[in-house]
Amino acid sequence: ILAVSDILQVRLSAAKLLKAQGLSPVVLEARDRVGGRTFTVRNKETKWVDLGGAYIGPTQNRILRLAREYNIKTYKVNEQENLVHYVNGKSYPFKGSFPPMWNPIVLLDFNNLWRTMDEMGKEIPREAPWRAPHAEEWDKMTMQELFEKICWTSTVRRFATLFVNVNVTSEPHEVSALWFLWYVKQCGGTMRIFSTTNGGQERKFVGGSSQISECMANELGDRVKLQSPVYRINQTGDMVVVETLDKQTYMAKYVIVATPPGMNLKMHFNPELPPLRNQLIARVPMGSVIKCMVYYRDNFWRKKGYCGSMVIEEEGAPIGLTLDDTKPDGTVPAIMGLTQHSQHVLGSEEALHPVHYEEKNWCEEEYSGGCYTAYFPPGILTQYGRVLREPVGRLYFAGTETATEWSGYMEGAVQAGERAAREIMCAMGKIPQSQIWQSEPPCLEVPALPFVTTFWERNLPSVGGLLKFMGFSTFLSVATAAGLVAYKKGLLPRS
Amino acid sequence: ILAVSDILQVRLSAAKLLKAQGLSPVVLEARDRVGGRTFTVRNKETKWVDLGGAYIGPTQNRILRLAREYNIKTYKVNEQENLVHYVNGKSYPFKGSFPPMWNPIVLLDFNNLWRTMDEMGKEIPREAPWRAPHAEEWDKMTMQELFEKICWTSTVRRFATLFVNVNVTSEPHEVSALWFLWYVKQCGGTMRIFSTTNGGQERKFVGGSSQISECMANELGDRVKLQSPVYRINQTGDMVVVETLDKQTYMAKYVIVATPPGMNLKMHFNPELPPLRNQLIARVPMGSVIKCMVYYRDNFWRKKGYCGSMVIEEEGAPIGLTLDDTKPDGTVPAIMGLTQHSQHVLGSEEALHPVHYEEKNWCEEEYSGGCYTAYFPPGILTQYGRVLREPVGRLYFAGTETATEWSGYMEGAVQAGERAAREIMCAMGKIPQSQIWQSEPPCLEVPALPFVTTFWERNLPSVGGLLKFMGFSTFLSVATAAGLVAYKKGLLPRS
Repeated sequence: ILAVSDILQVRLSAAKLLKAQGLSPVVLEARDRVGGRTFTVRNKETKWVDLGGAYIGPTQNRILRLAREYNIKTYKVNEQENLVHYVNGKSYPFKGSFPPMWNPIVLLDFNNLWRTMDEMGKEIPREAPWRAPHAEEWDKMTMQELFEKICWTSTVRRFATLFVNVNVTSEPHEVSALWFLWYVKQCGGTMRIFSTTNGGQERKFVGGSSQISECMANELGDRVKLQSPVYRINQTGDMVVVETLDKQTYMAKYVIVATPPGMNLKMHFNPELPPLRNQLIARVPMGSVIKCMVYYRDNFWRKKGYCGSMVIEEEGAPIGLTLDDTKPDGTVPAIMGLTQHSQHVLGSEEALHPVHYEEKNWCEEEYSGGCYTAYFPPGILTQYGRVLREPVGRLYFAGTETATEWSGYMEGAVQAGERAAREIMCAMGKIPQSQIWQSEPPCLEVPALPFVTTFWERNLPSVGGLLKFMGFSTFLSVATAAGLVAYKKGLLPRS
Repeated sequence: ILAVSDILQVRLSAAKLLKAQGLSPVVLEARDRVGGRTFTVRNKETKWVDLGGAYIGPTQNRILRLAREYNIKTYKVNEQENLVHYVNGKSYPFKGSFPPMWNPIVLLDFNNLWRTMDEMGKEIPREAPWRAPHAEEWDKMTMQELFEKICWTSTVRRFATLFVNVNVTSEPHEVSALWFLWYVKQCGGTMRIFSTTNGGQERKFVGGSSQISECMANELGDRVKLQSPVYRINQTGDMVVVETLDKQTYMAKYVIVATPPGMNLKMHFNPELPPLRNQLIARVPMGSVIKCMVYYRDNFWRKKGYCGSMVIEEEGAPIGLTLDDTKPDGTVPAIMGLTQHSQHVLGSEEALHPVHYEEKNWCEEEYSGGCYTAYFPPGILTQYGRVLREPVGRLYFAGTETATEWSGYMEGAVQAGERAAREIMCAMGKIPQSQIWQSEPPCLEVPALPFVTTFWERNLPSVGGLLKFMGFSTFLSVATAAGLVAYKKGLLPRS
């Protein structure tokens, strides 16, 4: 059994599970390191820094289970002080998941946006978004089109754009509405995906996220082959034959292809992939992101009462979101920023004097194609989504893109890897089909709190609803007034 | 000098030109045949049949020049009798490029659609669509969104959908409006691209379109290596080193990569491609099409007064367009259909009794990825389009997708191949930069007639314009009437 190439710890988690079952997996890794889209760099300036996937949070129970097994500790991302909402050149401090809105019309519009997205998400099956009642309609729309329908104010439309940028490193006009709504839903909704505290960005691993892959790789020993990009997969004989750029040939009964779907194109298949998969893999590009870390002499933002989280809305601003990246013991003060452009700005005298800088442009990575994850342009999810994890002969598909919970995250990578491993065990007759998909017990150290909505959040009207209501009451008032005038002027018949 | 792999005759036309200049090109072809997305099959039932690119027409002067050089004749696709517009279960015979519309509102709407698309196209530079004045705005829109803005009637919106389906084998909600408008423009406009007579489908090659590639391959002799898919390109030394699946290594000073952009992913690059190109190649999928040919004992449609061209509009109908595919001497009666689905229907008792059938599903082709050509989803052309034919070190890019006239067609493939060859000659100091791009003198045997628009086509209002006008005139009439009444009732002050 062979796991092929590139992505997060998925191929390793698949291999780990297979080995635990007494099988003999080999892991072929394209890069000279394990970890894929997680990438921990160690140096004296930073101690360690995660230049790829880094954040974990409540409900991500599989990755937390692995971390616990390897005794890798988590710590909370600093959110003690105020967050900052930077908009139109001004900073507004706030607390909570989303910046507050003060204009009452904007407030209604903002409230309605999250409520609508979460309600639409409820209609979408996480394991088969193409079966949602409105799948076809929503898939033909881009998120930009949907925002144009939902949002009444430019303030909210601008924030909605940032929400897409930050969560899936792509633009609202690039992504299918069905896909994005599914993505948010399978992370647990708008609050869970966007929050630091109680959400996807709550914690980081002490020592960096690549440790998980490294521990698994250690366990697997020389079964992990680095610098072995696969370029050919031949299924015409009894065994699957896999060839790598370093001129090695591997044979296996089953293969797990654990790359992002588009990276399947790096391999030449014999026989060719089925038409739908052949089409799918050319239609799901990776997002574009550069992760930057800026290091300072001291934590000046905390002294000013800011935690380091900034939500930045400005035309042409390269960075949409920052988070504190200081070490848990308070050393190595740093700010992490995500950018989809190539310059970067930070507005403060001290911010202009960093002591160190790290960045990773994921757009240039041949063996990821981008980060964090694959996105679906309009029309693709309903047409080709169903073959995403459909086996092709003895090839099985993992990778975080094939997950149904926290797809796009480390958690999804683990879910996918373990599911693919169990698919093979099922094919070998070792487990029944009913055991392929398994739920994960909650991690007690990182409990998930429910997001409680208030009566007003649930019941405030949308701007459209308000206008309709006001239109109706205006009509009533005018009609009443007119009636009164008519009565007074004696224009109505008196009984 | 080496030309890499797969598409139409572009790599061959590049190689031909380089050889003519005294250089020594080698052509690496992934398949066991030349021709790429052209594919002529010969058998006794069909004599010969083009299961890939087949049609040529006026203004496609480069491919016509090559055909003439090899003494390959063209013949006109039969359009003597009536065409059929099949809509809502009924057939309407017609003559001309587009079916006539009888409902006056639909007629205005239909006229306005073509006029608007052609006018928008005029704003788009064929060599740099990303520089159009409204590039950003139009690129964020899908064609479906644009049609929703332009079209007032469902009849016209449905026909507009078919127009996208037939021309670029994808759906209006999948493609960027900027890209599609550019595509139509660089083919010469809505009439040129869609017409049989005087348009892109006017003619076919006697004996099939692959002959052009075959003649070029003959000329190049053993410089053409079949079954040589390239999986690795190394530019780290003095020479470019190219490795193929059949374990051959080629070295060259320059390489032309003449695959569809997405097929670049089949190769492992050292050094990695620049970030923008790495992103581009994962964002431009190929269209989906199955080309079918149905053969009959005789030409029953001609006897009934139909030429064989059908424009089919029906929810769920797999085939949108058919053309007569009978041989020029009247033998081997056949109908060609293009389908984006997998079943097919033809409505006539005789149509149900074909004597032979041929089809080619281009979606399953590993080394094309689909047909006819790559499409740009929303947001991609403005963000990444400018690197489409930008050289990377000693790699130059050809392929019909990189052309600026009839891109997506055989003509575009020849333009691109010859341009890439001249780029290399320029890099070698053999020609000045000003000679890289060359225009082509018109082919006298296949003259291009201008499409003349009538006064009414140019000046009839859109439905929106009509409504505005009617609203205004209604207002005027009502106001006049009210004035008259007021005057009569003595409500106006008399002077």
